[in-house]
Amino acid sequence: MTERMGQQSFWRFGVCVLLAGALWLMPIPADLPVRGWHVFAVFIAVITSFILRPYPIGAMVIFGLVALTATGAITIQEAMSGYGDPMVWLIVAAFLLAGGIIRTGLGRRLALLLVSRLAKSPLGLGYSICGAELLLGPVVPSNTARGGGILAPIVRSLAEALDSYPTRHPERAGTYLALVGSHANLITAAMFLTGMAANPMVAQAAQAVFGVTFDWGTWALGSVVPGLVGLALLPVFIFLLAKPTLTDTRAAQAVARRELEEMGRWSRGEKIMGIVLPVLLLLWVSKPLHGMHTTLVAWIGVSVLLITNTEKWQDMVENDKAWETLIWIGGLLTMARSLKEHGFIDWFAQDVGVWFTDVSGITVVLIMALIYFYSMYSFSMLSAHIAAMGTVFLAVALGAGAPAMLTVAIFAYFSNLCGCTTNYSTGPVIIYFGLDYVSPRRWFASGFLVSLYHLAIWLGVGLIWWKMLGWW
Amino acid sequence: MTERMGQQSFWRFGVCVLLAGALWLMPIPADLPVRGWHVFAVFIAVITSFILRPYPIGAMVIFGLVALTATGAITIQEAMSGYGDPMVWLIVAAFLLAGGIIRTGLGRRLALLLVSRLAKSPLGLGYSICGAELLLGPVVPSNTARGGGILAPIVRSLAEALDSYPTRHPERAGTYLALVGSHANLITAAMFLTGMAANPMVAQAAQAVFGVTFDWGTWALGSVVPGLVGLALLPVFIFLLAKPTLTDTRAAQAVARRELEEMGRWSRGEKIMGIVLPVLLLLWVSKPLHGMHTTLVAWIGVSVLLITNTEKWQDMVENDKAWETLIWIGGLLTMARSLKEHGFIDWFAQDVGVWFTDVSGITVVLIMALIYFYSMYSFSMLSAHIAAMGTVFLAVALGAGAPAMLTVAIFAYFSNLCGCTTNYSTGPVIIYFGLDYVSPRRWFASGFLVSLYHLAIWLGVGLIWWKMLGWW
Repeated sequence: MTERMGQQSFWRFGVCVLLAGALWLMPIPADLPVRGWHVFAVFIAVITSFILRPYPIGAMVIFGLVALTATGAITIQEAMSGYGDPMVWLIVAAFLLAGGIIRTGLGRRLALLLVSRLAKSPLGLGYSICGAELLLGPVVPSNTARGGGILAPIVRSLAEALDSYPTRHPERAGTYLALVGSHANLITAAMFLTGMAANPMVAQAAQAVFGVTFDWGTWALGSVVPGLVGLALLPVFIFLLAKPTLTDTRAAQAVARRELEEMGRWSRGEKIMGIVLPVLLLLWVSKPLHGMHTTLVAWIGVSVLLITNTEKWQDMVENDKAWETLIWIGGLLTMARSLKEHGFIDWFAQDVGVWFTDVSGITVVLIMALIYFYSMYSFSMLSAHIAAMGTVFLAVALGAGAPAMLTVAIFAYFSNLCGCTTNYSTGPVIIYFGLDYVSPRRWFASGFLVSLYHLAIWLGVGLIWWKMLGWW
Repeated sequence: MTERMGQQSFWRFGVCVLLAGALWLMPIPADLPVRGWHVFAVFIAVITSFILRPYPIGAMVIFGLVALTATGAITIQEAMSGYGDPMVWLIVAAFLLAGGIIRTGLGRRLALLLVSRLAKSPLGLGYSICGAELLLGPVVPSNTARGGGILAPIVRSLAEALDSYPTRHPERAGTYLALVGSHANLITAAMFLTGMAANPMVAQAAQAVFGVTFDWGTWALGSVVPGLVGLALLPVFIFLLAKPTLTDTRAAQAVARRELEEMGRWSRGEKIMGIVLPVLLLLWVSKPLHGMHTTLVAWIGVSVLLITNTEKWQDMVENDKAWETLIWIGGLLTMARSLKEHGFIDWFAQDVGVWFTDVSGITVVLIMALIYFYSMYSFSMLSAHIAAMGTVFLAVALGAGAPAMLTVAIFAYFSNLCGCTTNYSTGPVIIYFGLDYVSPRRWFASGFLVSLYHLAIWLGVGLIWWKMLGWW
């Protein structure tokens, strides 16, 4: 078995290598710098590997960097430069903060508090989950940690308290709650720069390709209206798709109260975390006033947790998700940057621009947005989708002369919302689906309807809001 | 207890903060750029914290970077830039490779093979340990992993096989073997750029301050003669200091043979590792021929281990030592670089240079070398010593107009050899001392004699050899 897996991964790896080789050796257009094309060849192979998965994506990114450096397409300094980018370290800090929120128990307590207050009816239960997502969204920057680590276990225990199990009465509450939890997670992921681990990649790409600074405040400003509308209507919308047969959910409320009692009084760690997080939010939002970089603010937060012994250094060092993400996001950033620096993006945008001379930039962006959204069906990871399709999306929009801010906004928000389509799109979705309250068929069907729901809101309310902001 | 420790660390932290504050606010010379001085203030506080240890050094480096960035002394881009330096990633790759050598069992097998061949007498046993250190030195780039992880456990089981225990007959063999193991480890650490985790910091500083490229081959070229002499005479020298009362050690040989039998035939992982490591060595040595950067070569090695499934990605991701080292070495590198870029080093060197107008550069280097060597008494970590005293050492040498290559060579080798002085200088020394065969008093006494031994060889044979190389 392991032997065969080893062989399989070796063959799938071979496909990626052949792809890179074939592209590399192709005759290339005269007006395209050779290095740009070589970076593109390796980049495409790495992205393909994210779908074929011969090796974990961190390993594949390393292979890509090694291949580019060994062939002289880029220098070792260039290859490592992504790891010195503040955006990458924002992501690392985000994982370290998220670890603290889980370990201190603050995230769990907040969610239970909301449930114990709001959850008299199934709809109230749905709102309490959305509320918890909204509270934790900006400060638990791994959506997997938030949805999968904090909320999914609570959703499960609530459903079970209502005598709703995958094999017995899933319709009573479990189906509804799993769908609400999963889709709410993606909305809050979309709403904040720190809502999903790879979001800073979007901000970085926006800067690199369009020269647009899409920082914490800008990101949240653009999402606040469509995001809140989407979150506020979600429990009702899912209610229409998967109406729970229960009407009285006070049993779940009682469970939340009991679990809160078991947690006892607020620990020192929870209190400190409860002060640090709002301060971080405040500093992120008020950047125009003090000018402190989003990354610096995040590391100030990490420092305070360390100085007050709220978090132990060893726990941070053992946060392997943080380091794995550092490796692959830093490397991808290098490649994306090299695509730009070695002229590929501009060449591509210019070439594409020729096709769109008769079409308005807005039209192109909206068409590309739909393609971008639904291309998520072929990805099993939001971040891989961003890395792979995002570059194309931005380059085409650039070529078509689309309004920069609008393009970046749609890119940013759709990068997360598109996770609604499948049951394998991102960590928390996989975990919520794994609770087993929803059949795959039903997940896909409702996912498609939710995708229309998102498009209606973000291209309806959203476009109006962004017009008001002067983004197009 | 924990509470008190928390308070203690808080006070010791306060001392560091006060120190930084006091330096920061001091009136500074007119010819020194203000930023350079501010970086220096924080740098000194961070280094002081390495001695006081209010928090783990990784945490302290983060606090330092945060302080420098929050005060505007450096930008966030500058603060993170150290993490994009190839030298830092050489260290990370080194830890990942070391993990593989331990996990596959190759390191253990090589050491046992040598013992089973050479260990008829105590002296032979000593030579087998030195041989194993020499074999593993260039490729197990964490001296703690090599000495503490691979060799110390073997030394212990050999001593016990010879009926030598800390409480019963330590003199029979244990005392001798622990001293040989510990000091041999420091010699091989000195001999190779990849012999100790922080050695690339030395190379980086050499480049930054002197513009000297002290890469793998150059490093080894300078150390090969004094290093081999030192290693060859060490078992005899320690024999004079701590003569084992046993003369026949074939019982240890038998144990090594039995353990080899238990290991069975070479595993696939050991074989692959046994091919990859010599190839890496070859590529490191032959850099002038192919031009591939030391870091690139190391990552090629990591890639091969991953592609062949010799090492699992997850094992690498969970190598927390690698990530901890990344954090603090990357951050220190940033600070050291900022000292240089913001004019502090040049100012210091110029100022110091005035004192030495009547003294030859060589004399200054030799005096500084002794100060550098014995200042290790106040440090509990080789890397912290390098970071703290290395900057001063190089800056003074620069100011005194000392020959660059000679200065860098002495800096490089002494940075490791100086660990002989105490029983708390570096991981493997602590572990060998912890075997409990040697009293603290005896460790210090023999350590001082070994320091004279090193100085005699490296300033005797070494200086001649470096003269022949044209390094002064």
